Amino acid sequence: MAVYTHLGAEDLAALIAAYDVGELVSAKGIAEGVSNSNWLIETTGAEGIGARFILTMYEYRIDTAQLPFYLGLLDHLSARDCPVPRTIHDRTGAACRTIGDKAVALIEFLPGVSVDRPTPAQAKAVGAALAQLHGAVGDFDKSLAQSMGLAEWRRLLEDCGKEGLADIDPALPDLAFSELGYLDAHWPEGLPRDVVHCDLFPDNVLMLGDKVSGLIDFYFAAEDFFAYDLAVTHAAWCFEDRGKRFRPEISDALLTGYASGRSLSDAERAALPILARGACMRFISSRAYDWVNTPADALVVRKDPMDFAARLDFYREHGTALFA
Amino acid sequence: MAVYTHLGAEDLAALIAAYDVGELVSAKGIAEGVSNSNWLIETTGAEGIGARFILTMYEYRIDTAQLPFYLGLLDHLSARDCPVPRTIHDRTGAACRTIGDKAVALIEFLPGVSVDRPTPAQAKAVGAALAQLHGAVGDFDKSLAQSMGLAEWRRLLEDCGKEGLADIDPALPDLAFSELGYLDAHWPEGLPRDVVHCDLFPDNVLMLGDKVSGLIDFYFAAEDFFAYDLAVTHAAWCFEDRGKRFRPEISDALLTGYASGRSLSDAERAALPILARGACMRFISSRAYDWVNTPADALVVRKDPMDFAARLDFYREHGTALFA
Repeated sequence: MAVYTHLGAEDLAALIAAYDVGELVSAKGIAEGVSNSNWLIETTGAEGIGARFILTMYEYRIDTAQLPFYLGLLDHLSARDCPVPRTIHDRTGAACRTIGDKAVALIEFLPGVSVDRPTPAQAKAVGAALAQLHGAVGDFDKSLAQSMGLAEWRRLLEDCGKEGLADIDPALPDLAFSELGYLDAHWPEGLPRDVVHCDLFPDNVLMLGDKVSGLIDFYFAAEDFFAYDLAVTHAAWCFEDRGKRFRPEISDALLTGYASGRSLSDAERAALPILARGACMRFISSRAYDWVNTPADALVVRKDPMDFAARLDFYREHGTALFA
Repeated sequence: MAVYTHLGAEDLAALIAAYDVGELVSAKGIAEGVSNSNWLIETTGAEGIGARFILTMYEYRIDTAQLPFYLGLLDHLSARDCPVPRTIHDRTGAACRTIGDKAVALIEFLPGVSVDRPTPAQAKAVGAALAQLHGAVGDFDKSLAQSMGLAEWRRLLEDCGKEGLADIDPALPDLAFSELGYLDAHWPEGLPRDVVHCDLFPDNVLMLGDKVSGLIDFYFAAEDFFAYDLAVTHAAWCFEDRGKRFRPEISDALLTGYASGRSLSDAERAALPILARGACMRFISSRAYDWVNTPADALVVRKDPMDFAARLDFYREHGTALFA
């Protein structure tokens, strides 16, 4: 949560002049994004384009060679009426530009706020929006292999080492490596797949009341099972008390909403318990890696991997009955 | 530059409901403010009140007992057509509320961007806006003693110690304490005074082209000499290359702009050289204190006190001729 680069009025005005969006009126660095800096920009506007935008500068982690994929995905989904911000192209038609040695993109601003504790009506709307996304991505002409899959979870956890994991929680090393073994042995194959979001936490959903006004932050999007994306969303939305308390009414609503837009096959439904366990391992592994590699006194808030160990316990015990 | 406290949609909606500003549409934490957290808030609006606001949560350093002073000052100046954001009062008429144990205020959003390298036309506008502020504050009914005056500069520097200062720059201890001695012996008395801004850096001025659209961040405002406030503004605006290069055209424009709104007395003009030296010491002392007390690896960017030592050198050599 930071703005890593200073951009003055002069830098911003020069950038904005490359787009047909009118003149710069206001710019505020916003505290969103871990791998990039973001500004909320207001301009005098231009016909057919609103007057507010998010300017994103890609700072870390994101391979800028993949920007045409990420930005093209926004445009593809937005053109199919998904609540996804479109990319504003500059006067030459380019979706991204550079300032100094850094890539930047100007992205449509969408209203809405992220909820902390969703209601069933909100969870239903999110399920429906996810199904809409899955239905709209079919003819997108770019793809990106999943780099955050099972092999990467193992690599991250092995990099932490059993001692590093035990420092987080004494139970974590056994839990993590035994679960990895199970997932390796039983991970499904052949389920319907395409480019999916893979990170649809409440933070990444903007809502106006019960309506989804925006799905944002597609920088973990990659080709994977639709049902895995649903499992990630389920794990992200259906728990409270840091993963310790399951919210059945949210689970029901999310699955009902999804079913309203896309039917799960029997094979997908049967796979959901293991996919949900995988979703937990995905966040256990990345959070454990960040935990071990972030100094305890750094100002970055470390996210506790054990919040997803609690969810994993739940899915191991109740997953089969839950998704039956 | 951070948002220290998480506020979810539910917290924000509950807060906004206490004001007659319509319903919450968007909220983005913004990367401004060192002592407080800020959000750019959009609502559906209400008659006579715009639909965008800055929500400030007071986190550190600011004595919330002084909030009626700071917020009242905004309202006072705004009512006198100064380009200052007014405070939005809640349905009970209160200028601030609390969330948990923290005070918050909802403040008018003003357009504009801060410039990095002002033009003479911009500096002239800033000088005129400062004079307008000085002319408008007369009948404000609250006051606040200057807590960042000479005695405090000495306390901060003594707290650093000569070794701490020498770690920043070997020349700093002698420079600082000899200058403090000079200022103590020669600081003027009896100049016109009232509540003044005391921190009018380019960061705290919003501009639209050559026009000042907003003067913000009054949290160092206190009773002091008008001419001292002008000296602070001069030191903040008229240099580049980290204080090493004076910009005479900016100085001329700033002073011309100020003179267009308020005439300096002979005594004020004669005092400007020492007041400008004092302005440098004010930022040398606070920056040195923060430097010594901020870990080198903290994510907060430390501001170099030597940038103001360079300005001090300039004023010592050229101040008398400059302001004659």
